[in-house]
Amino acid sequence: MDTGLFTANNIWMMICTALVFFMHLGFSLLEIGLTRQKNTINILFKNIFIICLGILLYYLGGFNLMYPGAFNGYLGFAGLGLEAPMLADGSLDLAYNEGYTYWTDFLFQAMFAATAATIVSGAVAERIKLGGFMIFTLFYIGLVYPIVGSWQWGGGFLSSLGGENGGFHDFAGSTLVHSVGGWAALIAIYLLGPRIGKFGKDGKANAIPGHNLPLATAGVLILWMGWFGFNGGSVLSADPAATSIVLVTTCLAAAAGGAGAFIFSTLRHKNYDLTMMLNGILGGLVGITAGADLMSPIEAIAIGFLAGIIIVYGVALLDKLKLDDPVGAVAVHLICGIWGTLAVGLFGTKAGVGQFIYQLSGVAIIGLFCSISAFIILMSIKKLSGIRVSKEEEVEGLDIHEHGMDAYADFRLNQY
Amino acid sequence: MDTGLFTANNIWMMICTALVFFMHLGFSLLEIGLTRQKNTINILFKNIFIICLGILLYYLGGFNLMYPGAFNGYLGFAGLGLEAPMLADGSLDLAYNEGYTYWTDFLFQAMFAATAATIVSGAVAERIKLGGFMIFTLFYIGLVYPIVGSWQWGGGFLSSLGGENGGFHDFAGSTLVHSVGGWAALIAIYLLGPRIGKFGKDGKANAIPGHNLPLATAGVLILWMGWFGFNGGSVLSADPAATSIVLVTTCLAAAAGGAGAFIFSTLRHKNYDLTMMLNGILGGLVGITAGADLMSPIEAIAIGFLAGIIIVYGVALLDKLKLDDPVGAVAVHLICGIWGTLAVGLFGTKAGVGQFIYQLSGVAIIGLFCSISAFIILMSIKKLSGIRVSKEEEVEGLDIHEHGMDAYADFRLNQY
Amino acid sequence: MDTGLFTANNIWMMICTALVFFMHLGFSLLEIGLTRQKNTINILFKNIFIICLGILLYYLGGFNLMYPGAFNGYLGFAGLGLEAPMLADGSLDLAYNEGYTYWTDFLFQAMFAATAATIVSGAVAERIKLGGFMIFTLFYIGLVYPIVGSWQWGGGFLSSLGGENGGFHDFAGSTLVHSVGGWAALIAIYLLGPRIGKFGKDGKANAIPGHNLPLATAGVLILWMGWFGFNGGSVLSADPAATSIVLVTTCLAAAAGGAGAFIFSTLRHKNYDLTMMLNGILGGLVGITAGADLMSPIEAIAIGFLAGIIIVYGVALLDKLKLDDPVGAVAVHLICGIWGTLAVGLFGTKAGVGQFIYQLSGVAIIGLFCSISAFIILMSIKKLSGIRVSKEEEVEGLDIHEHGMDAYADFRLNQY
Repeated sequence: MDTGLFTANNIWMMICTALVFFMHLGFSLLEIGLTRQKNTINILFKNIFIICLGILLYYLGGFNLMYPGAFNGYLGFAGLGLEAPMLADGSLDLAYNEGYTYWTDFLFQAMFAATAATIVSGAVAERIKLGGFMIFTLFYIGLVYPIVGSWQWGGGFLSSLGGENGGFHDFAGSTLVHSVGGWAALIAIYLLGPRIGKFGKDGKANAIPGHNLPLATAGVLILWMGWFGFNGGSVLSADPAATSIVLVTTCLAAAAGGAGAFIFSTLRHKNYDLTMMLNGILGGLVGITAGADLMSPIEAIAIGFLAGIIIVYGVALLDKLKLDDPVGAVAVHLICGIWGTLAVGLFGTKAGVGQFIYQLSGVAIIGLFCSISAFIILMSIKKLSGIRVSKEEEVEGLDIHEHGMDAYADFRLNQY
Repeated sequence: MDTGLFTANNIWMMICTALVFFMHLGFSLLEIGLTRQKNTINILFKNIFIICLGILLYYLGGFNLMYPGAFNGYLGFAGLGLEAPMLADGSLDLAYNEGYTYWTDFLFQAMFAATAATIVSGAVAERIKLGGFMIFTLFYIGLVYPIVGSWQWGGGFLSSLGGENGGFHDFAGSTLVHSVGGWAALIAIYLLGPRIGKFGKDGKANAIPGHNLPLATAGVLILWMGWFGFNGGSVLSADPAATSIVLVTTCLAAAAGGAGAFIFSTLRHKNYDLTMMLNGILGGLVGITAGADLMSPIEAIAIGFLAGIIIVYGVALLDKLKLDDPVGAVAVHLICGIWGTLAVGLFGTKAGVGQFIYQLSGVAIIGLFCSISAFIILMSIKKLSGIRVSKEEEVEGLDIHEHGMDAYADFRLNQY
Repeated sequence: MDTGLFTANNIWMMICTALVFFMHLGFSLLEIGLTRQKNTINILFKNIFIICLGILLYYLGGFNLMYPGAFNGYLGFAGLGLEAPMLADGSLDLAYNEGYTYWTDFLFQAMFAATAATIVSGAVAERIKLGGFMIFTLFYIGLVYPIVGSWQWGGGFLSSLGGENGGFHDFAGSTLVHSVGGWAALIAIYLLGPRIGKFGKDGKANAIPGHNLPLATAGVLILWMGWFGFNGGSVLSADPAATSIVLVTTCLAAAAGGAGAFIFSTLRHKNYDLTMMLNGILGGLVGITAGADLMSPIEAIAIGFLAGIIIVYGVALLDKLKLDDPVGAVAVHLICGIWGTLAVGLFGTKAGVGQFIYQLSGVAIIGLFCSISAFIILMSIKKLSGIRVSKEEEVEGLDIHEHGMDAYADFRLNQY
């Protein structure tokens, strides 16, 4: 392989790493925008904490847990830290992989690791204890995410479910990233219970409007751009045909997700709902993520459009189940993540009954493992120190109680 | 051609695609920042809608209308959708073009298509009916933009106005993108009339200040960065000399536009006007866009500086004409778009009387076509369903009436 | 060298240029977020002004002052403007350098130049006269920054302090960019004095909370992403091993900086301080900048973690010294800049007593030169026209007095 091509490949992967990193800003803005002002600092703090912790944990053990090399397919560990000797011998870079260096590989994957926990952060917003959430994050990013990842991307048993006939397919993580986060989000909001005032005495859901929709919108556009890296980088090289078709399917699905949510929410609610369209875009993005490499443009549009519809009804379903998810994370990341994963068996070049069964199995196995793990971690925290803030703190806001700060302390109106 | 170079070219084009996509965030933040809070959701909704619709329309027919292959030079259409066979045969990618794959080409151009409509969105803000605007967008992005584009970038009659002597030159779209949007913006604000309160009984223009200048400023910096992709990608490869000089002329013109607007607005108004400097930067960017590939650095500075001055007087001119353009879109995109297009005949390696005539012809022909088209579309909507919201809705804000939402519903002051 | 590799290298450098440009948005948002609303327009204006002026000045003379070619090692100048002949002859691009074209080189360095002044902007916020600051910027970006830069990156005396044994090492500018800005910031806040109300009659520091922490947080994440370009581009090619290890050390140091500040500020203040964690991240980034190319991952973590601790105590130290730095610029850019520069003598592949002495010498020489230069420029301005706004203007806000504008003029609450 020539140096020019290797260099180009590695550039692409580094840029994609930067774009996935930037998704953390998107998540942060989306989450604070859709929630109340009094908990803004708390949400920002959680997100910044997750980025720092996620990268450090992935250095410490996550990377070698997720990519243990040859292993039994269920659990392996290649040791603490990174392989320092590689630093001295630059020639190893080319031998490592044709698409990227060892270091790029680590960093790209580290950015993914932190994402899974961020998904939870939005769902549990406005009522979880910060200390408890930080401990949850430690175990979930440090252990659950990389172990699940090893089963598929690390070459584990899911990747060869069907033996020589192939196995589970999850291109960039509809399940391995988004549903992993989504299952924990679901368990967490079940254990936490709804925010005070979310459900009336008659059981009807009340809308609790967010405090800054411009920032929420900015968050979604930043996330969409981040997906150029999330999906584009999951090609694991800059192969021109593979990367560019992936970007096309990704963007078409996002646009179709927005369109689907727009049409169905307008029909249902008779007004133009910005947040529904925003979540529709995200649903389309999550939906296409498992099969972005397999779909034709029209199939990508179909997957995205259906994801947009799913969002409209998914959000309503959660309300009906009295599950309070302030930002719609479960509908976006879990339900559309499952949809996208199953869609690989229904659309695209791998479609078929066999593949559908592999997809269903992957969804079920990972769903079970993640739900149980999240339940054990969160229940342990609940028993040890409690997981929900006091009623007083919830009413007055977490910003004052946990941080002694106000997000807009000096904000004034009509000052002259 | 070797694979390394092709891969590198395609990477550059994909990144530029992402950057042009990101301009939509820039436009969104700029437009809401410079307008009143009560219409924020409405503007965000329009922008998000445009992105989704623009990409889908460009898939459906826009791309094949703009690049119909061999055609009569005025109107051609290569069929609905994208050429799916190409998906199966990756080897076609290299044969398609040396600078990018078929898929990258589509996506890069799709991002441009949506931009033209976004320009209109800012000008008509705070008083246009959402339904009418969406229908306008459908026709303008779906038909007008790609047909005009085909005349030049699709190899149509404008590109060979002078036969073997060359023809109209518009490197990245001072006219084909910015003026196309700008003409529609002008027609639209003429048909709509000014916002209530914009012009006093004495005919004098009142300033209606925007509600969030930090976001407007962020919008301009995001747009500037987006222009790295807008102009840099218009090289249609990563040719090192061509791309890097384009980035230099682009950035120098932007900086000079800011400087020109700063100096002349300070002289005129005796205070330091942030929004004028921001629009000066945008004017410089629009101005350099037609000839970014032809100018030396000092010529780029001259074009940008003059664009900055044009902004100061252009905004004043519109006020004098009683045309109400809340964000300055006509001055930035139409007037500076014309200026930049004509500048190709005055500066740079193509300067000359003949070239100036080609440029003038292009400006006139496209101006005529876009104005008439926009007029027909908007007048039809006006006749059928009305185009302007009711007085009550305008006073109370479009957010409540069309969306039932408030952009900052939970925003509080001094909450503890 | 083959064209594919050269093209790839140049792409990387152009992207890094865009990312460093984007840091200006990060700085702008961070600075307004951490200060009071009444001075928001003023800070945005300064930052936009700096970008425009910085690029134009670097075109005019900065680039040729910083890279004068063969010179005496202390002061050289290769002439006004850029070498226009190179435009005509594209073949020169490859001969210029294997990592980038002449034009890319100029633009990348131009983005760095503007950064140094932006650092000062935050520290002097809320009380400096705009006119005086603009004049200061003119001299500091136009002369001081490029002259200091020429001593090291231009091949001057610092780069060969030790003769054949090597010399001062500052990979991407812990000293040459961040401390250059930091020294001027220190001198400026000393000369300006603290904001009214910052220190009580008992001498105790009062917290003056910022008005928009979401934007401050966005600023830090944007800056972190910008650092991918700042450090990644300082490799001056896309060499896969060199660039990717630099991104790894950069991100690990940032994460460790956040962790260090988090832990130590929580221990010290008994609450979760978002701004401290944000500044810890920035401290880690500044700290790793001098030696990002020399460190192993664990060393990068150590440097970043210590930088995070330094932030906690550095901010407290400035308060104790009655120096008022609204955004923490001195702690972040000066103190951590010095720390990172010295760390090159303590950690990594160049560690040793000799290297430590080179590093100390570089810090001292540049510190002396910058402090004296900044003092002369600022004192001259003070004598000629005064440097601090009137008491009335400071109390009422610079936005109204210097700009006649309000950053959130139409912001309303509960409008329906």
